[in-house]
Amino acid sequence: MALINEHYQKLAAGYLFPEIGRRVAAFAGDNPQADIIRLGIGDVVRGIPRPIVDAFKTAVEELAHDDSFQGYPPDQGQDFLRQAIVEQEFGPRGVEIAPDEVFVSDGSKCDSANIQEIFGTDNVVALTDPVYPVYCDTNVMAGRTGPVDDSGRYSSLVYLPCTEENGFMPPLPQGHVDMIYLCSPNNPTGAVMTRDALQNWIDYARTEKAVILFDAAYEGYISADDIPHSIYEVDGAREVAIEFRSFSKSAGFTGVRCGYIVVPSQLQGYTVSGEAVPLHQLWSRRHSTKFNGVAYPVQKAAAAALAPAGANAVRELITFYMENAAYMREQLTGFGITVYGGDNAPYLWLKTPAGVDSWSFFDQVLRQAHVVGTPGAGFGAAGEGFFRLSAFNQRATVEEAMRRIGNL
Amino acid sequence: MALINEHYQKLAAGYLFPEIGRRVAAFAGDNPQADIIRLGIGDVVRGIPRPIVDAFKTAVEELAHDDSFQGYPPDQGQDFLRQAIVEQEFGPRGVEIAPDEVFVSDGSKCDSANIQEIFGTDNVVALTDPVYPVYCDTNVMAGRTGPVDDSGRYSSLVYLPCTEENGFMPPLPQGHVDMIYLCSPNNPTGAVMTRDALQNWIDYARTEKAVILFDAAYEGYISADDIPHSIYEVDGAREVAIEFRSFSKSAGFTGVRCGYIVVPSQLQGYTVSGEAVPLHQLWSRRHSTKFNGVAYPVQKAAAAALAPAGANAVRELITFYMENAAYMREQLTGFGITVYGGDNAPYLWLKTPAGVDSWSFFDQVLRQAHVVGTPGAGFGAAGEGFFRLSAFNQRATVEEAMRRIGNL
Repeated sequence: MALINEHYQKLAAGYLFPEIGRRVAAFAGDNPQADIIRLGIGDVVRGIPRPIVDAFKTAVEELAHDDSFQGYPPDQGQDFLRQAIVEQEFGPRGVEIAPDEVFVSDGSKCDSANIQEIFGTDNVVALTDPVYPVYCDTNVMAGRTGPVDDSGRYSSLVYLPCTEENGFMPPLPQGHVDMIYLCSPNNPTGAVMTRDALQNWIDYARTEKAVILFDAAYEGYISADDIPHSIYEVDGAREVAIEFRSFSKSAGFTGVRCGYIVVPSQLQGYTVSGEAVPLHQLWSRRHSTKFNGVAYPVQKAAAAALAPAGANAVRELITFYMENAAYMREQLTGFGITVYGGDNAPYLWLKTPAGVDSWSFFDQVLRQAHVVGTPGAGFGAAGEGFFRLSAFNQRATVEEAMRRIGNL
Repeated sequence: MALINEHYQKLAAGYLFPEIGRRVAAFAGDNPQADIIRLGIGDVVRGIPRPIVDAFKTAVEELAHDDSFQGYPPDQGQDFLRQAIVEQEFGPRGVEIAPDEVFVSDGSKCDSANIQEIFGTDNVVALTDPVYPVYCDTNVMAGRTGPVDDSGRYSSLVYLPCTEENGFMPPLPQGHVDMIYLCSPNNPTGAVMTRDALQNWIDYARTEKAVILFDAAYEGYISADDIPHSIYEVDGAREVAIEFRSFSKSAGFTGVRCGYIVVPSQLQGYTVSGEAVPLHQLWSRRHSTKFNGVAYPVQKAAAAALAPAGANAVRELITFYMENAAYMREQLTGFGITVYGGDNAPYLWLKTPAGVDSWSFFDQVLRQAHVVGTPGAGFGAAGEGFFRLSAFNQRATVEEAMRRIGNL
């Protein structure tokens, strides 16, 4: 009798975004005339810049010819891309990363989902609340949690509430944890971690021999000068942190799928008997056994996004979306709504009107304004009473969405 | 203290192909003048056909424009591709698959590596010997095995020796198993499973409530009329089998990365208490949580490979490689080497000369003929004394390789 992985049975509900998709589809089915504006899922909408698309197409054409055909990609990523990443993404910020420490992948969702596989199932996992659901759900599936309670929290996980009171900064846990997921700029709150806040976490992790899984997928949206873009800008991080990066929200690659992960050579995990094992070696084994690399044309396109013309175009894209965010902040604040985020991140984190829970507010905004956001409670118990809007849309659409919300 | 997944420590050696890569790189470093011919890894070499590349480029261009931009792909794959798959790949063979049963992915290596995640770790896994190493290693990493012995076999796994004596047909296990990996046309032996052989396995799986994980990545290479291309051509398979398919070896997508998996709606796994759970539901949850879809241009290219012009070009590619295989068979047989496979599969499975083990033969062929093959022992204990050559190369290269091996 083929047994299933019963940990899946503990999962509280469908993955958040498909659930939103189902509700929106049901509403659209009942109201075919409604012009629905989607500010829910964090998906970009603008075309990929010309220098990047041209590099992509040129590389696809190479595949048509025997003398320039490329077969299986190198497991860890093309040398040209890993070199460009260390030189363009880390070098200018004073961070030394070796190309061998970079693993190219098909995106940060997959990386942040898969990384837990190289860790033991007895580790205690700390998650911020609210949190990107993938960090949580993949640990549930792997068996690092007990059952879920009525508030959507799983036993054995350590939750770090990020609230208005603490400025949405994850507090250090009371006791010991082994694996810590941090995301800055944060999805969903839009908050960014300061250098001091990161230093506190790194010091904690060094003391506890814990590992920080640092999701920097939105680093391109940081505008403040003093906010680190990489955790490796902070002392000691190479001993305790893995970092996730993505081309999705910078170069518009949500549909192209390319990201990468940095695993420093000196980062270690431990056997139960206390023997230290380099995590780089484990991730390399995982990556080469369960993954087969990223398409050559996609890697050429990613490299073009880091070259001067592409990088300039990416900066323009980010500026465009951040102008949306600033406009949304201003409008929503004018409507009397309390708004967080949106200054160093493409997400705005709204307080729902007093007494209205997140999913009710979601349904209300969908039904009355035909605007899709994301209910904060979908990101965790501490997200209850909040609502996420993304700045990823065309300007006119954002203006229309704000008009409709203003009319509510 | 962050504990590692100690199951990784059980892995006997590096993944086979990186190990071959290291040996070849070392030899090439010491012998920079050597013109090395690679018939080891099963990677194609010919350009992707024009209709497919054109569709790929057209779709990339769409991403450059706001009005045709595509963001996050649908989790399970684009409707147009899943529709084309059921109509072009299964319909003509009389197999009814619903588009909702197809999950598009970045390749069969990943699918066959990831599928075990939805199963319990207490299941007994049966593998053929020799076997594609990914099936084995991913189950070791997940904890479904004990330690490895001197022959490279892991305790708790059930090995099904595929030998000259049984015509490389996997024998039914003596006792009960829960998960069974079958691959036909077989990598590495090149053998194909007959309808009767598949029926025996399906009957066994129905009796034992086991699940067959059927890898059909090489089905396009079947030339014999009476060999099933899909396990679903055989009665009862929808109740017990998941099938893996790939565009890698048909359309030349080893470097593009696109495959798919079929999970029939009625296929079930069981909880420890005996409750039946649809595997489709579990795989859907896994796919939407740990994967983020395949790039739109890649799916457009895959669909073009199934449309008439693309499909014709794919048939020509396969014919080309199979003519290589026929030539290699003839030459090697002429040299007095016993050769299996190569008639319904792009792999030839050679007996090494008496007394020479696989890795020694690998080193000898590399050093003396500058030809890279794959040592049979790298695929399992029963592969000892065999050597795999792939037919994926240009004709002139194959001819030169045969000349050199003939001179040995």
